[in-house]
Amino acid sequence: MPDKLSQTFTALADPTRRALLAKLSRGETNVSELAKPFLKKMSLPAITKHLKVLEKAGLITKSRIAQMRPCKINGEALKDVAQWMEQYRIYWEESLDRLGEYLKTIHPTPSSKGKNDGRTS
Amino acid sequence: MPDKLSQTFTALADPTRRALLAKLSRGETNVSELAKPFLKKMSLPAITKHLKVLEKAGLITKSRIAQMRPCKINGEALKDVAQWMEQYRIYWEESLDRLGEYLKTIHPTPSSKGKNDGRTS
Repeated sequence: MPDKLSQTFTALADPTRRALLAKLSRGETNVSELAKPFLKKMSLPAITKHLKVLEKAGLITKSRIAQMRPCKINGEALKDVAQWMEQYRIYWEESLDRLGEYLKTIHPTPSSKGKNDGRTS
Repeated sequence: MPDKLSQTFTALADPTRRALLAKLSRGETNVSELAKPFLKKMSLPAITKHLKVLEKAGLITKSRIAQMRPCKINGEALKDVAQWMEQYRIYWEESLDRLGEYLKTIHPTPSSKGKNDGRTS
């Protein structure tokens, strides 16, 4: 059996599962409601399978209230990813800085534009 | 072909590949040097394969200087993961807070101990 963190990363390595999480980030949602936008592309059993992968990885929890199956995000597994990411902060922050610098060159703010066109000393 | 982020998460979903990244987080390392601690458990071709998965996902870059094959971490793919994680910050920070509160109860700091045992008003 894969370790917990590997299981979490595997669960996140699928665009449908990430889209399901994104929908759940807006709040607790019932399975049938959650499945709706995906039913054009895949079957309900396929969606249920994706939800099971997320649940097994500890990324969501599913409860049972009468006929309802409300799902919600479980922060625990995401916390483990965030903690793992922390040791590489120096690498991804450097990349974010570079992205920020690049965005400034294509969308200069009034102050940075002022600095670049030589109107300020 | 899987999308870039799915490819990155798949690459991270393996403890050996994460261990290789952890070793590289200490600095640029030649492939042979990088492989050494893993050779007790697996073959050099198996390690090379893992490095290829990391390279394809954009998590590392490998260059060629004479007989050397130095590898280093590439922040780009990690930045994408960090940016994706950002939208779930509310969930994992809540979990980190809970972890912090729990750790305080089992390893109380002098000040929090003071507050708990009623010696301070």
